Amino acid sequence: MLNKIFLLLFLQLSILGTTHGGKILIWPVEGSHWLNIQIIIDELIKKEHNVTVLVASGALFITPTSKSSLTFEIYKVPFGKDRIEEVIKNFVLTWLTHRPSPATIWRFYQEMAVVIQDFHTVCREICDSVLQNPKLMERLKKGNFEVLISDPVFPCGDIIALKLGIPFMYSLRFSPASTVEKHCGKVPYPPSYVPAVLSELTDQMSFADRIRNFISYHLQDYMFDTLWSSWDSYYSKALGKPTTLCETMGKAEIWLIRTYWDFEFPRPYLPNFEFVGGLHCKPAKPLPKVLWRYKGQKPATLGANTRLYDWIPQNDLLGHPKTKAFITHGGTNGLYEAIYHGIPMVGVPMFADQPDNIAHMKAKGAAVDVNMNTMTSADLLNALKAVINDPSYKENAMRLSAIHHDQPVKPLDRAVFWIEFVMRHKGAKHLRPAAHDLTWLQYHSLDVIGFLLVCVATALFLVTKCCLFSCKKLGKRGKKKKRE
Amino acid sequence: MLNKIFLLLFLQLSILGTTHGGKILIWPVEGSHWLNIQIIIDELIKKEHNVTVLVASGALFITPTSKSSLTFEIYKVPFGKDRIEEVIKNFVLTWLTHRPSPATIWRFYQEMAVVIQDFHTVCREICDSVLQNPKLMERLKKGNFEVLISDPVFPCGDIIALKLGIPFMYSLRFSPASTVEKHCGKVPYPPSYVPAVLSELTDQMSFADRIRNFISYHLQDYMFDTLWSSWDSYYSKALGKPTTLCETMGKAEIWLIRTYWDFEFPRPYLPNFEFVGGLHCKPAKPLPKVLWRYKGQKPATLGANTRLYDWIPQNDLLGHPKTKAFITHGGTNGLYEAIYHGIPMVGVPMFADQPDNIAHMKAKGAAVDVNMNTMTSADLLNALKAVINDPSYKENAMRLSAIHHDQPVKPLDRAVFWIEFVMRHKGAKHLRPAAHDLTWLQYHSLDVIGFLLVCVATALFLVTKCCLFSCKKLGKRGKKKKRE
Repeated sequence: MLNKIFLLLFLQLSILGTTHGGKILIWPVEGSHWLNIQIIIDELIKKEHNVTVLVASGALFITPTSKSSLTFEIYKVPFGKDRIEEVIKNFVLTWLTHRPSPATIWRFYQEMAVVIQDFHTVCREICDSVLQNPKLMERLKKGNFEVLISDPVFPCGDIIALKLGIPFMYSLRFSPASTVEKHCGKVPYPPSYVPAVLSELTDQMSFADRIRNFISYHLQDYMFDTLWSSWDSYYSKALGKPTTLCETMGKAEIWLIRTYWDFEFPRPYLPNFEFVGGLHCKPAKPLPKVLWRYKGQKPATLGANTRLYDWIPQNDLLGHPKTKAFITHGGTNGLYEAIYHGIPMVGVPMFADQPDNIAHMKAKGAAVDVNMNTMTSADLLNALKAVINDPSYKENAMRLSAIHHDQPVKPLDRAVFWIEFVMRHKGAKHLRPAAHDLTWLQYHSLDVIGFLLVCVATALFLVTKCCLFSCKKLGKRGKKKKRE
Repeated sequence: MLNKIFLLLFLQLSILGTTHGGKILIWPVEGSHWLNIQIIIDELIKKEHNVTVLVASGALFITPTSKSSLTFEIYKVPFGKDRIEEVIKNFVLTWLTHRPSPATIWRFYQEMAVVIQDFHTVCREICDSVLQNPKLMERLKKGNFEVLISDPVFPCGDIIALKLGIPFMYSLRFSPASTVEKHCGKVPYPPSYVPAVLSELTDQMSFADRIRNFISYHLQDYMFDTLWSSWDSYYSKALGKPTTLCETMGKAEIWLIRTYWDFEFPRPYLPNFEFVGGLHCKPAKPLPKVLWRYKGQKPATLGANTRLYDWIPQNDLLGHPKTKAFITHGGTNGLYEAIYHGIPMVGVPMFADQPDNIAHMKAKGAAVDVNMNTMTSADLLNALKAVINDPSYKENAMRLSAIHHDQPVKPLDRAVFWIEFVMRHKGAKHLRPAAHDLTWLQYHSLDVIGFLLVCVATALFLVTKCCLFSCKKLGKRGKKKKRE
């Protein structure tokens, strides 16, 4: 009996025991995505985990640094940094040139399709470089990793996890039309009040807005389906069985979403989605003096009261008590630093989620936007004056800040908790909705509705037939009687 | 400048400051609901809040006790304890006699309708006793409460909160067909994989199951709509403006749901829903000896190894290392104590959510059920033997226990956090979905779909007309030319 009790106690302790010294594999994405995941990596290392980052030899922003408990596993790819730089440059320039609007959406789609297909070519070359490198795969297998953290913007991490037989989870800001979250993650997105990403709409939509939103979802869905569909055969081949990108992505244990309800409009989600926006934010350190970041040639018209620096500590600057406003391109990372410190914003959005991000802050009364393509210096000045002099902007920024700070557990701690949870329990299957086992038709109950309609139609048909038959009989009898 | 900084610091501190000495009003529900909310009340008192419970003079289980920081505001109702006892007894007996099944559902509905209408009569008399008692209402107004906690099973708490001009929140296990959560709270319930409450279905459904589930939702929806619709005029009259029960309930700031993902099948929810199931669970205290609870006459056939007691410390018993199984009627409170301590169950469900609760535990492999109406002693013995001797039941119960214990914040702490959040921020409007501002038609985008269909039809019609017109013209010309 005592043996059994000890066995159970051991079982319970081994499941619930604190997670230290775990082994975690990271499949990173370039740019701001890397900045964000770095914060998680640092925290994991603080908690005594060993983290390995898979880095392509041609990576642009992901610079291997030497740290104990942090390994950069560099694998060779058949291109250099210039190739990645070219892809990113083309992406940004194409977006800026053909900024999507209801009138130009088709042209935008056509131009972006070329860039995205090029991006996918690079992605596939990178993925091949790992999967077709038996020595690397063997080393990874021997690494006994317990979880892989990936970003679905850059496919392949999920394939590597499945090949290694370990659970994986995602860190994600958004996908076009939320297609990945919706179709692969099974999150419902009612188009009546959840604005489509990239639409710049809010949750307060007029009838015309709702029509635009409805079309936006379907148009972006179509774009995603056509542009990402080539991955299905790649995934099937890599995993050695017929599958799709979406089916594989649906196997993610936990989705760490890089926003929170201070920024998002409330909408449905699933228990394996965790909103950890602003996990990189922290209190400000004291500043040395007034600062200005600018890389490049000094403009001749620059005023004497403006200084240029290569790099500035943005977070410390936003947390300084004298900071009155934040002129921002609207990236999620910077925007969250402004929310954290309660600073109203002037948004000059450029591409990707930036126009959307600023639209969110505008709707919440904490920002004014100016159009980068058409703005004059007077526009910028007026916008700045508005957010500085109209107290509502500061009040709303402070309200968002209060919401951000008032959570039961800090975003970074929640992100790390769920990573460790997946390691402790070898997954989080209890949070996985059964929707993953249904086809599209079944998920929407269309087979059930169809069946019930056929039943009703059959019943109506039979009743009508019976009635007609009875009427005829009665009619005939009546005629017979009349004749008699 | 310094003044402004201090003002902002003060603002931030006053928003984020720890909440102590708040004033909270409770609108309780009888029976096990009261047991559950009592745990929250005790914790609120521990955190130095002042709690006032509104109790009808005819309350059955809610016994006013004298505690500092806890006030029972007793108001007179025109009936005694026997009236409440009669309603509860009728409810249970009717359920047991006409236990719902696909074949008897209509009879069950008709019989329950009588009982529920009687229940609503009592509810309305209770509500009247508060609203039409100007002295009491005046006293409550002077009480300067910051939040009211209610249970939507027993309407009226929301009206009182709105009359007092304070935010309110709910503690809820479920409503029939989840109608309140779905239609008033705007949570999506896809019938394809989310089993309807009271259906005893799981998230793994065959085609036939999904048909039954689909019909269950609509049938229960219909029952709710017909039986609860009389409240609409009551709410409109009480609040002095045309409104509905659902519209008013939709104003709840936070919904504390008394389950969690150790028990529920994963399904969509909204950010203002918090799953705090098992908040009453706690480690076991040592037991004095073997125990058996039984109230009534001692059966003549009772074995010598069984002792009878009026009351037993169920939680301590379930937490005892020698406890092997739990024979339970399947109430949510007891079931969560079994999950907490990892004890497999033999379920003998009786009424309300109990058959459903046991179906959940069965699906998760931690319970065997026996039918109370048909079971023999051999059935019970076999069920007990199964959960004790087949190790999978213990393993699954331990797995659920591990999930329950492995949360970022304990359920009770989360419940108290969100109550205090609502007090600190005077609500939680940032979590309220915009779906509340839409009609049923708009919510489902039916107006948008209709409009787009009309557009497409019109376009098709015009194109066809043009084509026909052109063809005719061309045809005529052809004929003319031929003739020429």
